[in-house]
Amino acid sequence: MAQKPSIPKGTRDFNPTEVAKRNYIFKTIRNHFEVFGFQPIETPSFENLDTLMGKYGDEGDRLIFKILNSGDYLRKVDEKAYEAKDIDRLTAQISEKALRYDLTVPFARYVVMHQNEIDFPFKRYQIQPVWRADRPQKGRFREFYQCDADVVGAGSLLQEIEFIQLYDAVFSDLGLSKIKIKLNHRKILSGIAEVIGAADKLIPFTVALDKLDKIGEEGVISEMASNGISDSAIKKAMPLFSMAESEGQTFKLLSEFLESSKTGKEGIADLQFIVDAVGKLGLSNTTLEVDVSLARGLNYYTGSIFEVAGPEEVKMGSIGGGGRYDDLTGIFGLKDLSGVGISFGLDRIYLVMEELDLFPPAIDQSLQVLFVNFGQQEALAALPLLRKLREHGIKADLYPTDTKLQKQLKYANNRNIPFVVLLGKDELEQQSMVVKDMAKGSQHTYAWNDLQQFIGLL
Amino acid sequence: MAQKPSIPKGTRDFNPTEVAKRNYIFKTIRNHFEVFGFQPIETPSFENLDTLMGKYGDEGDRLIFKILNSGDYLRKVDEKAYEAKDIDRLTAQISEKALRYDLTVPFARYVVMHQNEIDFPFKRYQIQPVWRADRPQKGRFREFYQCDADVVGAGSLLQEIEFIQLYDAVFSDLGLSKIKIKLNHRKILSGIAEVIGAADKLIPFTVALDKLDKIGEEGVISEMASNGISDSAIKKAMPLFSMAESEGQTFKLLSEFLESSKTGKEGIADLQFIVDAVGKLGLSNTTLEVDVSLARGLNYYTGSIFEVAGPEEVKMGSIGGGGRYDDLTGIFGLKDLSGVGISFGLDRIYLVMEELDLFPPAIDQSLQVLFVNFGQQEALAALPLLRKLREHGIKADLYPTDTKLQKQLKYANNRNIPFVVLLGKDELEQQSMVVKDMAKGSQHTYAWNDLQQFIGLL
Repeated sequence: MAQKPSIPKGTRDFNPTEVAKRNYIFKTIRNHFEVFGFQPIETPSFENLDTLMGKYGDEGDRLIFKILNSGDYLRKVDEKAYEAKDIDRLTAQISEKALRYDLTVPFARYVVMHQNEIDFPFKRYQIQPVWRADRPQKGRFREFYQCDADVVGAGSLLQEIEFIQLYDAVFSDLGLSKIKIKLNHRKILSGIAEVIGAADKLIPFTVALDKLDKIGEEGVISEMASNGISDSAIKKAMPLFSMAESEGQTFKLLSEFLESSKTGKEGIADLQFIVDAVGKLGLSNTTLEVDVSLARGLNYYTGSIFEVAGPEEVKMGSIGGGGRYDDLTGIFGLKDLSGVGISFGLDRIYLVMEELDLFPPAIDQSLQVLFVNFGQQEALAALPLLRKLREHGIKADLYPTDTKLQKQLKYANNRNIPFVVLLGKDELEQQSMVVKDMAKGSQHTYAWNDLQQFIGLL
Repeated sequence: MAQKPSIPKGTRDFNPTEVAKRNYIFKTIRNHFEVFGFQPIETPSFENLDTLMGKYGDEGDRLIFKILNSGDYLRKVDEKAYEAKDIDRLTAQISEKALRYDLTVPFARYVVMHQNEIDFPFKRYQIQPVWRADRPQKGRFREFYQCDADVVGAGSLLQEIEFIQLYDAVFSDLGLSKIKIKLNHRKILSGIAEVIGAADKLIPFTVALDKLDKIGEEGVISEMASNGISDSAIKKAMPLFSMAESEGQTFKLLSEFLESSKTGKEGIADLQFIVDAVGKLGLSNTTLEVDVSLARGLNYYTGSIFEVAGPEEVKMGSIGGGGRYDDLTGIFGLKDLSGVGISFGLDRIYLVMEELDLFPPAIDQSLQVLFVNFGQQEALAALPLLRKLREHGIKADLYPTDTKLQKQLKYANNRNIPFVVLLGKDELEQQSMVVKDMAKGSQHTYAWNDLQQFIGLL
């Protein structure tokens, strides 16, 4: 019995059109990464288990795909752990490798391992798949690509300015408009928690605040309360809820609010510098706005925090994000190396572009010219012509068998091939070929010697 | 205690120069794949375990990397198998996914799953990593890329002609010369085994014959004898040993040798057709030769067999290979679909090109222009100029901190950056910039307004 094939849940096959569309986005991102001076690295798909474990919290540890050791993996297993079915101990004994969960931890590992070969500051980009044993759902997969650009070894705010320009350049080039880049700062969030008297509740406070968009003011207040934030603190925080809509007033309101916090004022100064510089340079197709409710990745970001919202007309979460983390490589023993980076969410960008019909129309035109196959003699005569077309970089092919003309033309139609060449018995005698323009329905005869004329059209 | 980081054995980090060189090879191969009418697909990194198991022989099954099920993977384990530590049964119960071992089986699975969306004949290419738990050694890794092009649903020998042209186009474009494409046919090997009276020993006979290059005539004879091939059969096979060096005589000698074998003569006719057609078309930089000792992948190839030997001046095994298999998708229930394909060995091509110094010299020039950072005011003034360069697609950057000039110039040198821009206090006042040509040591001053002049140079 033959197997009925399937693929693991949360994974995908990509057909030629999907690959072309994905590559179009990758290529655009990669071009801008390189123009901005980032250099590519690649790391292995699997890392040693202990490189990854403990870096993403307990939930993250569970979502890491572990690879079973090869050979007799039970040979060295601890008998007691085996008998007790002690999963945690057993896993560490039968699995020493795991699939990469993100690109940041492997990058930190790379920087530490190769620190003596790297010229710092090091601007690297990395576009590779990552794997997470998450419950699959719409837009969430178990294998997906991340596109990251990071700078290590540079504390200057010029990097933040540059990342905002980079987002602007990529999204403009992809034809996405009305994109909002939201900006916040860890020190502003710390300052707020300090001012309202909830410094010890920074994380639950910001996590709740981050949901303002989704659950509204009342929802945020009740979540804060249920996380033990006092009524008086919540009351003091009230002005923040409206700050998001204050437009040009944000810095003024924020300065008043954080007047008593040294940390908060440092955060404001950083953002003011970034916003001023970006304002002078100008953005093409995106807008930059300070959003004090943005708290993305607060567990590791220590400075600026970015998030990019998709266009308003498409219901979609963020399509990018990033921030600054002061001690990227500390976990692997290289202290005090500041890192700042951003990421592009390929799958969501793809969905947005699909919905807004932004891919170039000819993107699935994988073949420009198809020679019809009328039989062995005719096919052999077509080969030198085909060869010349290909030498000119033209995507051209000969139908492999001399099946019915009807069927060959249907194939050309299905594949959206603009020119079909007919080289049958008569043409063979006359050393000519008939070129059919499939869109116009017109046709034209060329002598083999005049192939160059046809090439000129393509 | 910080961890001292490492990566799993048999895996590799790629630094920016290595990525650039690898991408140069990938891009060349991909361009030609597309010009020849192949379309890209991508499949998931892991497949269901039963999609892969049993397809590569017992040894292959052992080399497949299995992924441990997520969550409490012992919950559903059979108690008896667990107590008995019955590895085979246990593995199937705690692992239902595995990393892809090659691109051919996933392709066959893809074709069967998507048969109703595909326009046959389907020419697909696929460039993705595969994983094997092999013992790592020089040139053999546990994670490596395969670059495959295959046609399914076309029985015509035109495909074979095309694949030879494709090899020629790629290797010529990469600058590799004196490359030999070796050609053989399953039916010729069957015919030989038949004629010498060893039809039941086809596999050991051809496996031994395949080693002629390595172990010489005597070695081959003794291996055949030890595999139960009779003295009389070996004696009859003797003329084959010198056939490889017979140059233009091969077809004549082979026809005489296989005169009594219908199968053998079919094989000769196929190869004669291919060799004649390729001869008429001509090859740029490679030579095609029939090699009756070539027996690569005989377990699955049913028609033509290809192998590409690296240039003679570099000690390296084959850098490509392929063949025709009549029933590619039968294992997944779609019968009688002929497939023929070739593969490029990226890692070996890389090593050959490195040894022959064939990579373009500027391949590691990841940045064309670097602005020196003289402090905040100067840096901010550089930003609009930098932006304009980047808008012209020029890879340009500003050093992120105002560290010592010496250090910044050293960084420019290390990164092989051809132009360094000095925009200090004086230039800021005069709205100008000094461009230093790092190779020539010369420098030239441009007004900011004349940036276009500098851009013209790049």
